[in-house]
Amino acid sequence: MITTIKDLRRWSRQQHDSQKQIALVPTMGALHDGHLSLVKTANQYSDTVLVSIFVNPIQFGVNEDFHQYPRSLENDLRLLQTVGSPEVFAPDVAEMYSAGFDVSVHVGGVSQPFEGKIRPTHFDGVATVVLKLFLASGADIAFFGQKDFQQVCVVRKMVTDLNVPVEIVVCPIIREPDGLAMSSRNRYLSKTQRSQAIVLSQSLMLAEKMITCDNIRDAETVREKIRSKIETAPDMKIDYIAIADPKTLHELTTINSDAIILLAAKIGTTRLIDNLLITTTMS
Amino acid sequence: MITTIKDLRRWSRQQHDSQKQIALVPTMGALHDGHLSLVKTANQYSDTVLVSIFVNPIQFGVNEDFHQYPRSLENDLRLLQTVGSPEVFAPDVAEMYSAGFDVSVHVGGVSQPFEGKIRPTHFDGVATVVLKLFLASGADIAFFGQKDFQQVCVVRKMVTDLNVPVEIVVCPIIREPDGLAMSSRNRYLSKTQRSQAIVLSQSLMLAEKMITCDNIRDAETVREKIRSKIETAPDMKIDYIAIADPKTLHELTTINSDAIILLAAKIGTTRLIDNLLITTTMS
Repeated sequence: MITTIKDLRRWSRQQHDSQKQIALVPTMGALHDGHLSLVKTANQYSDTVLVSIFVNPIQFGVNEDFHQYPRSLENDLRLLQTVGSPEVFAPDVAEMYSAGFDVSVHVGGVSQPFEGKIRPTHFDGVATVVLKLFLASGADIAFFGQKDFQQVCVVRKMVTDLNVPVEIVVCPIIREPDGLAMSSRNRYLSKTQRSQAIVLSQSLMLAEKMITCDNIRDAETVREKIRSKIETAPDMKIDYIAIADPKTLHELTTINSDAIILLAAKIGTTRLIDNLLITTTMS
Repeated sequence: MITTIKDLRRWSRQQHDSQKQIALVPTMGALHDGHLSLVKTANQYSDTVLVSIFVNPIQFGVNEDFHQYPRSLENDLRLLQTVGSPEVFAPDVAEMYSAGFDVSVHVGGVSQPFEGKIRPTHFDGVATVVLKLFLASGADIAFFGQKDFQQVCVVRKMVTDLNVPVEIVVCPIIREPDGLAMSSRNRYLSKTQRSQAIVLSQSLMLAEKMITCDNIRDAETVREKIRSKIETAPDMKIDYIAIADPKTLHELTTINSDAIILLAAKIGTTRLIDNLLITTTMS
């Protein structure tokens, strides 16, 4: 396991010197099958896979769960042995943000709505740490989950606008058997909360059916259907339900091209997100 | 001459594939002996030198001289032939900032005082374009002039905090025979302004003498001496005279370690800067 940027650079140089492509899977640890599927996909692209495990303080707001965020390094390392034992980079906070750290990367546009409105400093923190991980690791290709759809938009925009020489691959959401999107935060849920949480994915499936089978094109009608489904769970508080252009994240009033449905809701103190990409073939 | 980022990446990959180190000299063109000395130094480090020529709109404030800034590409290319004909990257604005560009790099701390106070968006623009040039060119080492001392501090801080894999080399200020620091903006000066402009470098030499020969340690005394010297030029309006720690750019009251003296003044509509690094060996 690599813990310092200096050692990471040395490792990276060795890989490149032997003509190997570095495939990076950035994570905050507390690994689940969603992360492991990213590693499996990365394995198909390169035999040099690097998993970073770092709970990034600067992407958490002051009242968010940075300190409570689950950390389970030993178990994470064990899980990674089941998917080909990739190289692991697990720095501590002082290694990533040394005293006097004072640089930030800001992405406009796609970072502004939805998560950006509710968590105003979140995406600057994400963009900054992802860029640091890209540059410190010399990654050639990096793998992200569609679960954090808006994050993927922000990372892509950063890569394009800053000319970062890294290819971005997005992998599908991995769900529990009942449909709940896998998330490290699911382990916060009590039994009742866990059973209520399935309304999120269920509401997305209802929406998909409305659009693709019943041919409903009015975004507000679809949003209302989602809302009423989520509200069947008594403890679920909706942050937003959005239907947007998957590239610009501008909200749609009529669904006549590809659309992303984005959800965020709180149950107790746990915040959950989910999304579904709708590919429509319109006549 | 390379004009697109795509071609730049291809060129860069070829250099790295043949084990060559890329030495970058970022410029805004209107080249003078100061720039040429950077290229000559770069030649000593690598036989693969790249000079970028790009007048970067986002580092100019709305009321600054972006549109008037001297552009002399043909002459620049001719001058570069006298220093080993480095590769040239000269993109247009649309190539560097395509429609919808919306990412910025912000450096705190060292970017805040002096130039940062007077030109509040300047260093974000500098940090952003320099990072883009580093990442698009795959530069291994980059050369900057000490003339823009605060800019060097900002670039160094960005490189450190974002883990950018580029080594920074700072080269001395090149001066006209009478002491005026070379600058592309010197060509804005009328004959009278040009003759008054020498008070800047003269005031720095006076200050150096006060500190190193007369052993004066009180920063305010030195600043007053500089001020009265500059004020002998009737058309010169001082923006700031600062004596600071060269690493943090925190202002000093007592000069008992290394110090940087930074000046900025306007003559007519032309803004000039100069600086002098004082290395003191104190008992």
